[in-house]
Amino acid sequence: MGRLSLNKPHAISEPPRAMTPSKSALVLTQGDASGVGPEITLKAFYARKDHNLPPFFVIGHPELYRRTSRDLGLEAAIEAASAETAPEVFTGALPVVPLQEGLSGPAATIRSIELAVEAVAQGRARAVITNPISKAALYDAGFKHPGHTEFLGELAQRYFGAAARPVMMLWSEELAVVPVTIHVALARAPKLLTRELLVETGRIVAQDLQKRFGLAKPRLAFAGLNPHAGEGGAMGREEIEVIAPAIGELQSQGIDARGPLPADTLFHAAARKTYDAALCPTHDQALIPIKTLAFERAVNVTLGLPFFRASPDHGTAFDIAGRGVADPTSLIQAIKLAGRVTA
Amino acid sequence: MGRLSLNKPHAISEPPRAMTPSKSALVLTQGDASGVGPEITLKAFYARKDHNLPPFFVIGHPELYRRTSRDLGLEAAIEAASAETAPEVFTGALPVVPLQEGLSGPAATIRSIELAVEAVAQGRARAVITNPISKAALYDAGFKHPGHTEFLGELAQRYFGAAARPVMMLWSEELAVVPVTIHVALARAPKLLTRELLVETGRIVAQDLQKRFGLAKPRLAFAGLNPHAGEGGAMGREEIEVIAPAIGELQSQGIDARGPLPADTLFHAAARKTYDAALCPTHDQALIPIKTLAFERAVNVTLGLPFFRASPDHGTAFDIAGRGVADPTSLIQAIKLAGRVTA
Repeated sequence: MGRLSLNKPHAISEPPRAMTPSKSALVLTQGDASGVGPEITLKAFYARKDHNLPPFFVIGHPELYRRTSRDLGLEAAIEAASAETAPEVFTGALPVVPLQEGLSGPAATIRSIELAVEAVAQGRARAVITNPISKAALYDAGFKHPGHTEFLGELAQRYFGAAARPVMMLWSEELAVVPVTIHVALARAPKLLTRELLVETGRIVAQDLQKRFGLAKPRLAFAGLNPHAGEGGAMGREEIEVIAPAIGELQSQGIDARGPLPADTLFHAAARKTYDAALCPTHDQALIPIKTLAFERAVNVTLGLPFFRASPDHGTAFDIAGRGVADPTSLIQAIKLAGRVTA
Repeated sequence: MGRLSLNKPHAISEPPRAMTPSKSALVLTQGDASGVGPEITLKAFYARKDHNLPPFFVIGHPELYRRTSRDLGLEAAIEAASAETAPEVFTGALPVVPLQEGLSGPAATIRSIELAVEAVAQGRARAVITNPISKAALYDAGFKHPGHTEFLGELAQRYFGAAARPVMMLWSEELAVVPVTIHVALARAPKLLTRELLVETGRIVAQDLQKRFGLAKPRLAFAGLNPHAGEGGAMGREEIEVIAPAIGELQSQGIDARGPLPADTLFHAAARKTYDAALCPTHDQALIPIKTLAFERAVNVTLGLPFFRASPDHGTAFDIAGRGVADPTSLIQAIKLAGRVTA
């Protein structure tokens, strides 16, 4: 940790520099209508003044929000709006940009995402916040993408004409982490962890922390794959053969990348001050510390897209949907972050 | 988490039931004389009233402690003592049970450990607290054991006549974790994670939490190996084929074992209330959360021995030894815990 602690103590949670100013609102997707999305959207709207939230609108069926509000006794005003009228409507009612009548189920879920990306591409919205979707429900309806993130990559191509390489980052005020391998069996992770993957991921993270989060020189800390980062090769050679060369390549490109560092000592308070994002070879190395420190407050951010996308770091929570007990904290944090980085 | 949260909220950090009462002191080993061991031992002694520490003595060269105290300006009184006189001496001076004159280097380090275990076996000390050793220095001197823990296993056999199966647990007030595989390359962990290993580890943890920590029915939570605990086999089958059957076997033996649970959501405050120890397939799954939450306060405990052994959760720290900056917190926590569980 010695070297790390010499760095100046800036952090992602500092106010970023202003990007292109914009008066447009943030756009929220509807997500799965049967999940907690409508409820947390209404609760976030309700809490907009307490949290000083930037204006947002949602693309969905106004009736879904009216019904949810009524059923849960939230008494939120709902108003059909356009992206353009949304900032003004937002002061008194949740602006809902209506989906085409009759569209329901997975088709409505998908259309809401498409329209949200289109709105950002056309400059009518500042950033996309996605509500939770059910992959199982979408697959049953013929959805061909492995998940939300990959679908957004395709929409980036469609609406921005730009190739996208989405990278998942989990962000909270305390810590930002990037799992380099994600939803794969642990036994496959060592094989998937290539120098190319590490370099590409590191480059996208550095670029987006600079471009979107306003950090002049983002500091990346790479965790090792093995216990104690391999202890000089005694417990695995991936650090020597794969991770260290990748870090060297990033450094040669002028990126402030360090490591590989032992993952277990990378996340206590003093260590966290020394970097802006920790890149971890496996899913659990990245997700354990952020969910331990900031369980309700973690936000899922997609880097590497031509627009900013954030989402709450939880799923549809079908088991509690409709009961009024869903916690909107993660969505509120996502809205705040999106507002801040696109201010 | 639903099921877990139904359990009554007891925890390891509650005052355990009294074990066999004892008026004898705790015994500290010297550890590597060139590391931070002597310094943190003196600092712990110095802080004994602030932390209400139980009496302890150290087996080492009195001159080493006098010199260290003088060099660091600690002004601690040092007094040669026996295990029997230690509790009385402790009120005014650090009791040091002298090693044989002329014994130095690795031979002194090893002899101190042997004598400490012997003292506990003979009922002249309550529990063993080991100061950090340097494996490299010991190997150079012909030490044949992989580490401290294995050596203690052999000493258990020698002095207690009992076969030992040491299991490492990291303990703090917030969280106790057991890595089921430990210092192995990550690529090997899936192969080493057998049903037998999980059952044996779970049984020893349950037994020692009951016997030493006074929990009538310890609650064990097992983490999955794969992201999201494999998500029903979609990301790895070890949960289905290895971990779940092991948990079933433990349950059939009357042990309160649950899982496999996704590791990333196992360590936030609400989740931690639902179990007494989390057993994790890999080193980092266990060590990341405890070092994130309790970096300076974590204690290394060896379960499965015929005596209680704890140690600070750090090494010799040669780089800072002799400078007076070593933090005694982990050693102090180890002493407190050992005092509590053998009270």
